[in-house]
Amino acid sequence: MNIKSLIRSVPDFPKPGIRFRDITPLLASSTGLRHITRELANRYEGKVDKVAAIEARGFIFGSMLAHALNAGFVPIRKPGKLPGETIGHNYSLEYGINRVELHVDAVAPDERVVVVDDLLATGGTARAALALLERLHARVVGCAFVIDLPEVGGRAKLERAGYEVHALCSYVDAE
Amino acid sequence: MNIKSLIRSVPDFPKPGIRFRDITPLLASSTGLRHITRELANRYEGKVDKVAAIEARGFIFGSMLAHALNAGFVPIRKPGKLPGETIGHNYSLEYGINRVELHVDAVAPDERVVVVDDLLATGGTARAALALLERLHARVVGCAFVIDLPEVGGRAKLERAGYEVHALCSYVDAE
Repeated sequence: MNIKSLIRSVPDFPKPGIRFRDITPLLASSTGLRHITRELANRYEGKVDKVAAIEARGFIFGSMLAHALNAGFVPIRKPGKLPGETIGHNYSLEYGINRVELHVDAVAPDERVVVVDDLLATGGTARAALALLERLHARVVGCAFVIDLPEVGGRAKLERAGYEVHALCSYVDAE
Repeated sequence: MNIKSLIRSVPDFPKPGIRFRDITPLLASSTGLRHITRELANRYEGKVDKVAAIEARGFIFGSMLAHALNAGFVPIRKPGKLPGETIGHNYSLEYGINRVELHVDAVAPDERVVVVDDLLATGGTARAALALLERLHARVVGCAFVIDLPEVGGRAKLERAGYEVHALCSYVDAE
């Protein structure tokens, strides 16, 4: 199945010069959802205890994968959303600082975790999520994305840091 | 299975006087995820074409249900997140106004849709989501929630408006 046929490229969103990869046609397709979940589940079957996913679009793919793998689901959230004791990690954006948070009891030491998000660009959010999981001594099995933008450099950074990276499709900027 | 044994009550979150129902232990449990998805899928099997879920926690349950039903998934999002042509609906909160948005091509007329969110309190967000789906002439089959707070009145409002409401558990305030 060609996933890219179900991804719409929207120029100048959310700001001029950015070509946004819109996954809503893929989500609307029951065939698309099944394909993605099967591909990811085949890769991580028997290898993970929990799927950690990044708010908000990561939740969609991460929870389907957790269900398919019979694993638990761990939400990595924006600041102030998790009610229990949390740890947080700040990371830089082009303009300003972002932060993600994780409950301290979300994973136990040595639990095997895969991190899921929809898109890998700079990898800033993924690296912040990984830093939080490492602080809880999780065993990170890999990072999975639906879309990779390799020219932006996130994949290379994650791989240099020793993480296995898997993406279901990738785009170069001109596409 | 007793879902409530996997829901943690957190007093005074996000502000004093609110008892927050924390679903993260339920999410962390593979048994809990399977139970919820099976319960919802049994109810809506063969009855829906698409599952529409409300950002962000609704995405978790909605996407698992869509996958289990072999249905499509429709995200109902906070303002400015959807890149295509959207419709929006404002609704009042205790202090201020909130808004949800939906792509105009997210559902076709007469498509059968169930709306999913984690929690039903005042029903304001759910009613805004339903208003958007009605504008696209979807056939709303029902609204499903993991948790209902019936004392807050959302369920009664949705039922008075003619919607079928299903919740997997409910809490009264003192619990």
